[in-house]
Amino acid sequence: MLFKKVKTVIENTDTRLGRIFDLFIQFLIVLSLITFSIETLPDLSDQTVLILRFIEIFTVSIFTIEYLLRIGVSNNRLKFIFSLQGLIDFLAIFPFYLRIGIDLRSIRVFRLLRLFRAFKLFRYSKAINRFRKTFSIIRSELVLFLISTLFLIYLSAVGIYYFENSVQPEKFTSIFHSLWWAVSTLTTVGYGDVYPITIGGKVFTFFILMIGLSIVAVPAGLLSSALKEVLEDEEQDLLK
Amino acid sequence: MLFKKVKTVIENTDTRLGRIFDLFIQFLIVLSLITFSIETLPDLSDQTVLILRFIEIFTVSIFTIEYLLRIGVSNNRLKFIFSLQGLIDFLAIFPFYLRIGIDLRSIRVFRLLRLFRAFKLFRYSKAINRFRKTFSIIRSELVLFLISTLFLIYLSAVGIYYFENSVQPEKFTSIFHSLWWAVSTLTTVGYGDVYPITIGGKVFTFFILMIGLSIVAVPAGLLSSALKEVLEDEEQDLLK
Amino acid sequence: MLFKKVKTVIENTDTRLGRIFDLFIQFLIVLSLITFSIETLPDLSDQTVLILRFIEIFTVSIFTIEYLLRIGVSNNRLKFIFSLQGLIDFLAIFPFYLRIGIDLRSIRVFRLLRLFRAFKLFRYSKAINRFRKTFSIIRSELVLFLISTLFLIYLSAVGIYYFENSVQPEKFTSIFHSLWWAVSTLTTVGYGDVYPITIGGKVFTFFILMIGLSIVAVPAGLLSSALKEVLEDEEQDLLK
Amino acid sequence: MLFKKVKTVIENTDTRLGRIFDLFIQFLIVLSLITFSIETLPDLSDQTVLILRFIEIFTVSIFTIEYLLRIGVSNNRLKFIFSLQGLIDFLAIFPFYLRIGIDLRSIRVFRLLRLFRAFKLFRYSKAINRFRKTFSIIRSELVLFLISTLFLIYLSAVGIYYFENSVQPEKFTSIFHSLWWAVSTLTTVGYGDVYPITIGGKVFTFFILMIGLSIVAVPAGLLSSALKEVLEDEEQDLLK
Repeated sequence: MLFKKVKTVIENTDTRLGRIFDLFIQFLIVLSLITFSIETLPDLSDQTVLILRFIEIFTVSIFTIEYLLRIGVSNNRLKFIFSLQGLIDFLAIFPFYLRIGIDLRSIRVFRLLRLFRAFKLFRYSKAINRFRKTFSIIRSELVLFLISTLFLIYLSAVGIYYFENSVQPEKFTSIFHSLWWAVSTLTTVGYGDVYPITIGGKVFTFFILMIGLSIVAVPAGLLSSALKEVLEDEEQDLLK
Repeated sequence: MLFKKVKTVIENTDTRLGRIFDLFIQFLIVLSLITFSIETLPDLSDQTVLILRFIEIFTVSIFTIEYLLRIGVSNNRLKFIFSLQGLIDFLAIFPFYLRIGIDLRSIRVFRLLRLFRAFKLFRYSKAINRFRKTFSIIRSELVLFLISTLFLIYLSAVGIYYFENSVQPEKFTSIFHSLWWAVSTLTTVGYGDVYPITIGGKVFTFFILMIGLSIVAVPAGLLSSALKEVLEDEEQDLLK
Repeated sequence: MLFKKVKTVIENTDTRLGRIFDLFIQFLIVLSLITFSIETLPDLSDQTVLILRFIEIFTVSIFTIEYLLRIGVSNNRLKFIFSLQGLIDFLAIFPFYLRIGIDLRSIRVFRLLRLFRAFKLFRYSKAINRFRKTFSIIRSELVLFLISTLFLIYLSAVGIYYFENSVQPEKFTSIFHSLWWAVSTLTTVGYGDVYPITIGGKVFTFFILMIGLSIVAVPAGLLSSALKEVLEDEEQDLLK
Repeated sequence: MLFKKVKTVIENTDTRLGRIFDLFIQFLIVLSLITFSIETLPDLSDQTVLILRFIEIFTVSIFTIEYLLRIGVSNNRLKFIFSLQGLIDFLAIFPFYLRIGIDLRSIRVFRLLRLFRAFKLFRYSKAINRFRKTFSIIRSELVLFLISTLFLIYLSAVGIYYFENSVQPEKFTSIFHSLWWAVSTLTTVGYGDVYPITIGGKVFTFFILMIGLSIVAVPAGLLSSALKEVLEDEEQDLLK
């Protein structure tokens, strides 16, 4: 009986207790992300470090208990452990235990994995489904868009390299250096750290941008079409 | 009879007098916003300050009379006072009277509330309804878009922090500092005050921007779908 | 007979001669625009100035003859002179004759009117009609978009003024100075000459940009809806 | 029999061998593009230059054999040579042989032609067809968009020249110099190397950007409409 009740609380969100449990876990995820961000601030007082450390131990403990419970109540334990959800849950607590045994500094990069905790937030959201459907409809088109963009970025980098390399060798040193200009220009970010100064380079930029604006507009067009399709399908499902 | 006439003038815009009254109030709102802006200019002559002060007293007086009349003629006075419209009307005149009693400097922040006057402009517009309908259709999707954007911004900030912190510690000091870079990059504003200089950071920026362009394109797609729905509904209503 | 032939050549583009005449005029318009642009270059040699002067006299002479012919062959001469087309044709040649009589320098600003010549290019284009139709469908929505944008820009300027004025008084001197920041930020141009440096200002910028991205996306959505309507109407006209 | 088999392998992608052949060629194209990019890096060691040279000779050899085989197996050899595909294949290997005979430095510009190799990548892709159809539907509208953009850019350049030339003569020297500002502003790239500083110039920029945002949004709207049309046509073809 207890086993069944725990299973319901953990795996379902229909009951009152299940909802409270989920909200509590979500709150802890956000808390641990905030803690993680504060830790990167320089010149933290000893007291703050201590508090952060305590919050970390607390959240990881809860996550560990939750992880073990999820394994315990699942119908197919091995399947859960190696499912995407299971692996994300594991990666969210794994770096903490790794840090206890060995040196702290060297595994700083591994802490990036803690971010996977945020993905847990999405597992609970129902509304995300509509979004996922939309993206699945236009997946192949988005891949094509990415390839076109990559090709245009490479072409832009080669072109600007030939125009600007002789005048600004320290900024357009090679095609690889020029790629950065191509990315920041075609996405219209335009940081202003690299820009053409020759007339040829400026005219080239104009043509590349004219093509680029059409390419960059593709996702908006794709999403617009796919979103309407998803909404229309939902309406038809309601009418049935 | 007089009560009924005043009520018609104030609450309706169908009659000639009602329209003139509304246009006059709208003109005063714009005037008071301009006055408010001019006041922030440095090195104003004493004469200008005097004129601005006079305009302020004049507009606030009219707004106060209007506010009291609106309360007077409304069918349910308490309901009007605590309605959004009533509160905005109150907030538009409240800071002025607050300033007379106590020190002027310290309540400078409260003057921001005067801006609420501008919202009054919109109350009279009929055309705004179409817009409001459009946004109400896609409200839940816009919230999802905001959450996705927030998540992507946070992820970008964490990523760029690990790539750039060691090279540009004064710009990417912590994840919080990196958030500013993420905002200005993903919205493609790109002020150019912070940008990655490491190869890893640049490659990371490229991938984040590719995802970001698809995310940022969502509102355009959503609005396009919803606007057409509103327009089609209006056409069908006309045919009925 | 000659009158009728000249009338056909000038007013129609169906005949061979009419088409040649139109192409010739269009070529001269582009030529005069290029000449106009070259004149603004500094350090022109005397020979270049002479050549530019000759081209100008030549093109204006042809435009004058064309203008007089158009008046001559029109069915209702007064109506043509005061039509938009007639006025643009007049403004394209008027500044030239003004310059002969009086001093050259002082009327430099009037030369901007020469640009109206370019509008003549559009008079001949048939394809522009589809575009004009599209914009006429969404005219009221575009006006609403403009008003929303103006409101958001003003609100942004007031907000950033309060956050940044005390820290960067030379850049965010008044609300009017802050408007420039609001324009360059909300359009995502982001020149990088003004940007917030306080934490409050940066957080405010984030919220303004989230709203701004939805507002700026409106024209794309509007155009998408209206363009499809125009194309569908054309298809139905073909089927009739 | 051998002739027929080679023809199948080269021209078809249905058989196992044909697919392997195509993938191999595609891999070599990417490899040669990477090699080409690495060559532009400064301070390459002699060993690296040697390896790059070897890869180049190898890839060009394969491409040459492929090109000759394609000519050999084609039904109409002259037609293939002068087809777009044939010319691109030729241009991909031609610069290499040109370099052997004469001096290397002077023909550096010709190496840009090597980039045409990348176009070969697209010849194999089937998915690109949907994209091509979409663009063919809105070709005339895209041309109109380009003309409108060109006109707006020119108008912006003339306007800003009159506002900013007297204050920033080194940046807005002539209309041609101002064109660069117009391009980077209307595409919302905003590098920050040139921007207006006069009040008139800033107000002018605001109006140009309001119009510009509507114009720049056109491709997104066009693509959205056309993409849906292509997808609907495909659905109907499937139902037949």
